[in-house]
Amino acid sequence: MGITDTSHRPDGAVGKQGAPRRRADAERNITAILDAALVCFTEQPQASMAAIARTAGVGRVTLYTHFPSREVLLEAVLDHTITQAGAAIETAAPDEGPAVDALGRLLRISWRVLDRHRRLFELAQRELDPAVLRRHHDQAMGHVEQLLVRGRQEGAFRTDLPLSWLVTTVYSLLHAAAADVTAGHLSQDTAADVLEATLLPALRSP
Amino acid sequence: MGITDTSHRPDGAVGKQGAPRRRADAERNITAILDAALVCFTEQPQASMAAIARTAGVGRVTLYTHFPSREVLLEAVLDHTITQAGAAIETAAPDEGPAVDALGRLLRISWRVLDRHRRLFELAQRELDPAVLRRHHDQAMGHVEQLLVRGRQEGAFRTDLPLSWLVTTVYSLLHAAAADVTAGHLSQDTAADVLEATLLPALRSP
Repeated sequence: MGITDTSHRPDGAVGKQGAPRRRADAERNITAILDAALVCFTEQPQASMAAIARTAGVGRVTLYTHFPSREVLLEAVLDHTITQAGAAIETAAPDEGPAVDALGRLLRISWRVLDRHRRLFELAQRELDPAVLRRHHDQAMGHVEQLLVRGRQEGAFRTDLPLSWLVTTVYSLLHAAAADVTAGHLSQDTAADVLEATLLPALRSP
Repeated sequence: MGITDTSHRPDGAVGKQGAPRRRADAERNITAILDAALVCFTEQPQASMAAIARTAGVGRVTLYTHFPSREVLLEAVLDHTITQAGAAIETAAPDEGPAVDALGRLLRISWRVLDRHRRLFELAQRELDPAVLRRHHDQAMGHVEQLLVRGRQEGAFRTDLPLSWLVTTVYSLLHAAAADVTAGHLSQDTAADVLEATLLPALRSP
């Protein structure tokens, strides 16, 4: 479900003057709900739908009209966050310069996004269906995959292992670093350097 | 809870003759339940406690006497499997020969255990508490950690990153490979080679 999907609006058949206004209200409500849900899921993973509606300043009926279940809402928040992360990753210019340097920049940005939304991703991993997670994983890792393809063409990254496995390696170690930070086994400040120092020798051409 | 823990037996106060017999019965029941639970959890992760009792050939009361909840049973099966895996890993002689070669042997054995019990580990990851998983993770990774310590002393493995992170790297990529095999993205036959080819450059001294 897209974040601006208003197909659940019950106002499909209202008069011409009412519709744009109601659509604007719906979009404002959806934005407020997604913002509130991100805060609630992050600060208190067990937050109820009622608490999320209260934080968003909307009624429970409005919340359930747009997001019929906690799972749908969690998936929408994840989708929203990954879309925003995609915009941040563009600023790392992954298509420019030597692939090894671009990977370093991409890892640093990805780590910042992951670290900031660590609790949300942990919650998603516990509560969402593995197939749903896989779809979001593919969405989030699109830039990494493109960069690996370019780096393989340029001879910088290894071609003796499947491309999908190299993407899995990056994704798994990013999440493992986040879990180690949560568990107090890795310091937040050094995690990005540690990731780069581990991943580059694993990915580079021998 | 250990697999031969019979502290839940209601026969603590019986006469001298009855106790050993009842203890033997209890141990036989526990073994039958753990074997049945491993089969059930692996073949049908949603298997009910009633189904597990039927497969084990014991009554539900007996099952619940030894394992008061599905979670306790799942943890006991995991513990049992990791203990058996420890015995298999001893055969790889991780303390002998060059550390890099020993790591290759250890990875191959660990992969075989993980691959064989993939469904069980996936279920445990979904259903058990992260702190409980971490304890089992430490138990399972004890040999890897010892070998990494030895290899660092010998100059074979890198010392510029925390030891705990090197253990995390091995553990994460083992599980990521299992997930990629399940998702059909990696072939079961090549997974051990792919793991070794990824991990050795990440772990070796530069």
